[in-house]
Amino acid sequence: VITQKSSGGFEDLDRMFAPASIAIVGVSSEGFGFGRGIFLSHLAIGYEGKLYPVNKRGGSIEGMTIYPSVEAIPDNIDFAIIAVPAHLVPSALEACRRKGAVGAEVLSSGFRETGTSEGTALEEELQVIARQGIRVLGPNCFGIYCPKSRLTMLPGPDLSREPGGVALLSQSGGLSVDFGYTGKWRGIRFSKVVSFGNGCDLRETEMLRYLRHDPETKVICMYVEGVSDGREFLAALQETAREKPVIVIKGGLSDSGSRATASHTASLGGQRVIWEAALRQCSATQVENFEELSDAALAFSLLPAGEYRGCSIVGGGGALGIAAADAAESLGIAVPRFRNDLQAAILDVLPKPGSSATNPIDIANPFVKPEHIREILLRASEDENIDFHIVIQLLYHYKSVKLTMGAGSIRDITPPYRELAKACREVVDIGKKPVVLVLPNIRQEEDDIEIEEIIRETRRLFTEVGMPVFDDVKNALRAIASVSRYYRRRKTLSISSSP
Amino acid sequence: VITQKSSGGFEDLDRMFAPASIAIVGVSSEGFGFGRGIFLSHLAIGYEGKLYPVNKRGGSIEGMTIYPSVEAIPDNIDFAIIAVPAHLVPSALEACRRKGAVGAEVLSSGFRETGTSEGTALEEELQVIARQGIRVLGPNCFGIYCPKSRLTMLPGPDLSREPGGVALLSQSGGLSVDFGYTGKWRGIRFSKVVSFGNGCDLRETEMLRYLRHDPETKVICMYVEGVSDGREFLAALQETAREKPVIVIKGGLSDSGSRATASHTASLGGQRVIWEAALRQCSATQVENFEELSDAALAFSLLPAGEYRGCSIVGGGGALGIAAADAAESLGIAVPRFRNDLQAAILDVLPKPGSSATNPIDIANPFVKPEHIREILLRASEDENIDFHIVIQLLYHYKSVKLTMGAGSIRDITPPYRELAKACREVVDIGKKPVVLVLPNIRQEEDDIEIEEIIRETRRLFTEVGMPVFDDVKNALRAIASVSRYYRRRKTLSISSSP
Repeated sequence: VITQKSSGGFEDLDRMFAPASIAIVGVSSEGFGFGRGIFLSHLAIGYEGKLYPVNKRGGSIEGMTIYPSVEAIPDNIDFAIIAVPAHLVPSALEACRRKGAVGAEVLSSGFRETGTSEGTALEEELQVIARQGIRVLGPNCFGIYCPKSRLTMLPGPDLSREPGGVALLSQSGGLSVDFGYTGKWRGIRFSKVVSFGNGCDLRETEMLRYLRHDPETKVICMYVEGVSDGREFLAALQETAREKPVIVIKGGLSDSGSRATASHTASLGGQRVIWEAALRQCSATQVENFEELSDAALAFSLLPAGEYRGCSIVGGGGALGIAAADAAESLGIAVPRFRNDLQAAILDVLPKPGSSATNPIDIANPFVKPEHIREILLRASEDENIDFHIVIQLLYHYKSVKLTMGAGSIRDITPPYRELAKACREVVDIGKKPVVLVLPNIRQEEDDIEIEEIIRETRRLFTEVGMPVFDDVKNALRAIASVSRYYRRRKTLSISSSP
Repeated sequence: VITQKSSGGFEDLDRMFAPASIAIVGVSSEGFGFGRGIFLSHLAIGYEGKLYPVNKRGGSIEGMTIYPSVEAIPDNIDFAIIAVPAHLVPSALEACRRKGAVGAEVLSSGFRETGTSEGTALEEELQVIARQGIRVLGPNCFGIYCPKSRLTMLPGPDLSREPGGVALLSQSGGLSVDFGYTGKWRGIRFSKVVSFGNGCDLRETEMLRYLRHDPETKVICMYVEGVSDGREFLAALQETAREKPVIVIKGGLSDSGSRATASHTASLGGQRVIWEAALRQCSATQVENFEELSDAALAFSLLPAGEYRGCSIVGGGGALGIAAADAAESLGIAVPRFRNDLQAAILDVLPKPGSSATNPIDIANPFVKPEHIREILLRASEDENIDFHIVIQLLYHYKSVKLTMGAGSIRDITPPYRELAKACREVVDIGKKPVVLVLPNIRQEEDDIEIEEIIRETRRLFTEVGMPVFDDVKNALRAIASVSRYYRRRKTLSISSSP
């Protein structure tokens, strides 16, 4: 059982996430070790404080002296990253504490997760040192990614430098860095991503409380394998979720999954039904897997707070429009007929024949001009039963169109997506209802790379102006439904708690 | 109500799917119309019979004479593709019938789906002509794709020429051609893909009976918006699903989805619970959307018939292994511990430290050699509780590895996937248990195209040797669970029907 430090104020954590200097212990002058990797990653991402590489063999790296010991560093340090073999970690941690470090992340594995008494004893040594006054993340973790202060995690040389409002607390290092990279192209920007591995000192409950009060964090994501104190955790979760959305993946809910968490981060899994009920009770948004976590984080961070009860669906046509409508209703989102006058106005803009101005709107022709999409969406925004718009663009169709027309490049015939992004942005600004873009790609042959390139470019154009992009309409709707459910519940809670 | 032709034997349909000559009515000598597109597509895909382009304005296309009328064609025809404005379709169809065509597909729209009395009357005219002795697909459809006879649908110039065992019957044209293209890169190969649109003559029930008896079709997929005779359809479905797997998407089960089917193919939707119960009763495999349809078609066509109760999960490690185990168990697939002796043998092969030989197998190091994966899978195959293997390869990790190692290209450092495919193929041949590859890609930034290229190449290497590849472990498991459920049910049915 871990004792939470009541004395450890959040000021310490603030300093840990924005250190003026970092010692990195275990940096070889060559090779591919973790220490060298994380050192180079901090140079690559542009950390602006002082970096002190340490290795008992000395040497140099990128023209900088490697100090033979932590003691040999000529100044005090704020933070430490430790990547030496497990049996050397306690003395390194103690040395960092004496050098004034407020915290350290321990990347090394070989502790409690091994299931050995040696590993457990080593981890207990870290706990003893931590209690003397240094906060510890890990061991067996990938550390912190905090773009604002240019801290990066393992292996993250090219994570985004742009800060944002999404935080992640994760026992898994792999999931943390994957989330960081996914966020980069999906347009999720981060305040703090924290991989805490075995969690010998800092872990879920305390970090959740910290993020609750962190003004830079608007949405909290969690990957939890096991918690050290269920009651405390759920209390913290409930308090936090009243103020900020908290999205949770609970891993290890099956027998074999639970067995795997033991060797992964020495955690105990728990029972599915109990977890699900508890998370619901706390108003947390439970998601099943990594993809749903990314989708939900994107929707929560880019959509305004509020309920999303009805949507318009534009484009896609035929079976895809029907699938979208079916999916929406199964998720509790209506796809209502437009008001009669608006239907007539929309039909005016649509190409004829073959189009349909009921909802979903079947745009028969793929070549609808951005200004027409703009008009359609503005009219649909006037309908009080519409809370948001889904625009589906089947960009992959242009491959066949290209072949039929004998065009040289798909780019010669695709619509001007920069203008479409601008048009959709104007719709949001004028109509005050979010637009969500869906860009599926069913043409993934080896010689179809050009389609993928255009899709990625289009996604960037939309995310740059703050509009979420999904690759599948069902995923988009599921994420938006979870946003809606959260704010509906928060409204209910605030009503029921008022006098 | 449509009368099924009892006289129309399957020989007619056989000839329709393998015509020696085709008239294509509505081929302009220039422009981008449907008729010209489908004509050029048949040239591109290499149709080897005689093609007769027809247009009342005459002219020529690709050096071939365009006949001014169907009557002007100098010989009889087997089949016709009609793409003229709706009001001209009845006379064109009648002319084709007189020219001996056994069947025709009508690509034109403007019939019952318009909801107008003119459209409905025109469609009824087609039905009258059909009863006089020509089978009609459509109107408002994309036609037939049959790689064996090099028939292709709209717009399908570059669909695969390689035939296979999967058939699709679909009211939606868009879904049909999307499925054809998805199959191309996923390794699903087709016997017959049939888009029947409004289905004025040939439609779901009769076509299903035809495919039941078609020796080239092993797996039947269906996209259904509405059926013309529910009782007959369900009877045909039940008979068919006793012999071949039938995978069904039912579109239009929501209010708005149902409204959209009316304008899409003039169909009536129906109620979700009733449909779901009926499909289950018939032993059909119901899927929710296009992605699940593709996943299921791939699994049914590449995995041997049988139950899949337990699996090994190799690679991925950490959170992904746990997620895989959780997903498997929630789908009724066990991830059992290996037999003790096998666990020891597997641990012998794994890199140390950090690996785990329980199941899921956490391969700590991404650089595990193909011969070691081979050994691990062969040992796991000896376990009687293991029915198949999931191998997860996180190829995108090599981007970070590349940056850390300063390698020039990701290809310089990725494992030899050709050898891995060969090794996995040997495992299947020796151990008689299928191997399924999962290739997720969380790095989809604009400058990460190289990762996508390598993933597509790897997918091809595996599908070329008959192993299914999925992009997500949950999708793989869900598809395999549906295969297992189908064959378990078929076994139960055959037991309960024996004396």
